[in-house]
Amino acid sequence: MASETKFFELATEKVPFYLQSGEPLTPAVLAYETYGRLNANKDNAVLLFHALSGSHHAAGYNPAIPGVDGRWTEEVHQGWWDDFIGPGKGLDTDSFFVICVNYLGGCYGSTGPASIEPRTGRPYGPRFPQLTMADIVDSQLALLDHLGIGVLHAAVGASLGGLLALSLATRWPERVRTVIPFATGARTTPLQRLHNLEQICAIEADLAFRGGDYYDGPAPDRGLALARMIGHKTFVSLEAMEERARTEIVRRDDSLAWYQLRSSLESYMLHQGKKFVRRFDANTYLRILDAWNRFDLVREAVATDMVALFQRCRKQTYLIFTIDSDVCYHPEEQAYLAEVLKKAGVNATRITVHSDKGHDSFLLEAHLYRPFLRAALQS
Amino acid sequence: MASETKFFELATEKVPFYLQSGEPLTPAVLAYETYGRLNANKDNAVLLFHALSGSHHAAGYNPAIPGVDGRWTEEVHQGWWDDFIGPGKGLDTDSFFVICVNYLGGCYGSTGPASIEPRTGRPYGPRFPQLTMADIVDSQLALLDHLGIGVLHAAVGASLGGLLALSLATRWPERVRTVIPFATGARTTPLQRLHNLEQICAIEADLAFRGGDYYDGPAPDRGLALARMIGHKTFVSLEAMEERARTEIVRRDDSLAWYQLRSSLESYMLHQGKKFVRRFDANTYLRILDAWNRFDLVREAVATDMVALFQRCRKQTYLIFTIDSDVCYHPEEQAYLAEVLKKAGVNATRITVHSDKGHDSFLLEAHLYRPFLRAALQS
Repeated sequence: MASETKFFELATEKVPFYLQSGEPLTPAVLAYETYGRLNANKDNAVLLFHALSGSHHAAGYNPAIPGVDGRWTEEVHQGWWDDFIGPGKGLDTDSFFVICVNYLGGCYGSTGPASIEPRTGRPYGPRFPQLTMADIVDSQLALLDHLGIGVLHAAVGASLGGLLALSLATRWPERVRTVIPFATGARTTPLQRLHNLEQICAIEADLAFRGGDYYDGPAPDRGLALARMIGHKTFVSLEAMEERARTEIVRRDDSLAWYQLRSSLESYMLHQGKKFVRRFDANTYLRILDAWNRFDLVREAVATDMVALFQRCRKQTYLIFTIDSDVCYHPEEQAYLAEVLKKAGVNATRITVHSDKGHDSFLLEAHLYRPFLRAALQS
Repeated sequence: MASETKFFELATEKVPFYLQSGEPLTPAVLAYETYGRLNANKDNAVLLFHALSGSHHAAGYNPAIPGVDGRWTEEVHQGWWDDFIGPGKGLDTDSFFVICVNYLGGCYGSTGPASIEPRTGRPYGPRFPQLTMADIVDSQLALLDHLGIGVLHAAVGASLGGLLALSLATRWPERVRTVIPFATGARTTPLQRLHNLEQICAIEADLAFRGGDYYDGPAPDRGLALARMIGHKTFVSLEAMEERARTEIVRRDDSLAWYQLRSSLESYMLHQGKKFVRRFDANTYLRILDAWNRFDLVREAVATDMVALFQRCRKQTYLIFTIDSDVCYHPEEQAYLAEVLKKAGVNATRITVHSDKGHDSFLLEAHLYRPFLRAALQS
């Protein structure tokens, strides 16, 4: 199945998009894809939020995005949730109209730090405004308005995408009926905050970063690669990988001058870092980590506490997925979310899938989620 | 109590010290301190191994080490185990003669990468040979020989120091009676290996590192500071720190150009990194991380497996300490060690202390360990 990127004009010179900080952004576009058909009542739409380094290209095959060249590498040409989206799949395109949008601030077609700043005629770089999760959600609501979609049938998101689904559900409770967060949580944990800080430091310490003003020179590849390694270890199950890698040959790595790699787990991780820098922009990565560290569901929705916040969501239904081997969003985090929902009197089901793949299970094992996902969406 | 660094001539130009790799090291010295008195039978000696970034200065007050200047900062003038060592304390100097040695390869007086290489007249830097845990242990056995100590009353070590205690106990089973590993393990876990790799990459990515040849220019401070942050998060309990830090003011940090710190936990971590670079050498740090990643108790002792290895230790007695909140060496690792010892028919007691301080409890809470430590040593 071929898919195609569409563009939505979020802001023009005359009508800016205002961020939570009060800063106007103008002009701005959002890149998005859709799958299935919007029905006449416009009540079958499912908004899918992608994760930290994902894109709007969730399903089918898309070899090119206008305006995005080198960064659109072959490994992302197949949609990242292709096993989940299509006729008869978890997000059944025979019934639903699925929308996925590249984040505002992103690097796959939506306006971001690498875009041209009208005032200077040069890429924004460090001058691109600071974003919040609420900004990303609100920019996508503007697209829904444009498409004439008042109420979403469902909001779905995994990992960081789950935070966005929760932000939408709590700040705009009338605009969504079913909320499906995968492998995510209602708060940023201290460990996540430090992992993110380490990644930020790794990028900032790279001399090529130059405060974010690097578009006319080399990119901070070493810093971004190290950042990705730091993050990536939380996406997989190290024990399972170590077990599988036991017989593999350890490759030398020319990015290290003194240290000799000791295991195929180590060379795998370095490889993940290097592969990533070819397809991602460090400034976008920084902005998303920053928004993740500042994520505060209660404050952004101007509520007194978590339970009071979710009391606004009593007309919604939740399906929460936990992955038992997840060390990015530990099972405790979904347990906390489910507990808060229960206290708030919201209808919520929590399912734990058992996998040795860790956090990344949500990308890899569609069959574990399909039955419950279909049931939750059809009901 | 004042303490003083002594020096042991490990190798001379005529009599080199041979490393496991076969490489000779010459000349070489070890810096060490002792507490208490060696008895006439020379059978009351306790060898204490320090942890990753520690020194031989375990007890008392020592404001200066000959040959070590700027790096011997005020924060390390008080011995790192001062609450554990002395009359009536856990390591009772009324009964025992305690020895602590700066690792071979270290930066506090023992020969290491910053020492002058005789062949070139310049600091070794990257030309300092690769070390193993067995090399560090064997260099300290040479000191014991020099002191006339045939059999140790005990070998004690926490964290990385525990690995050394286990290496000594399994490779030289006749030379120690009681083995007391704190907050450590018999193997390097995949997560530790990746944490170490990230730290190695952080140092190597710093342009000032220059492959390790930086002694005539600026040191790789940014890389080493980030490395320390990555490691330090495993030494503390983040949840407990986050709780305590809730009311503190967040300080700005001038090492970050774009990112604004969000919490006092973040500024605490950056502070830990910066403080560390004033007192430690990046090349020493790299070598210890490398030896940690290559640590393989079974292979270094030429055994077939872990149980067979510890069957050599049936005349020894083990006291193993676990800290329940430890996320550097998780309780599972000491449980594994205890299980292996049991299978091997070795007399072992395992004690779990309950603390909210995480791995660092072994440095901070002497009272939790004292009764069992005294009992194990007196028996």
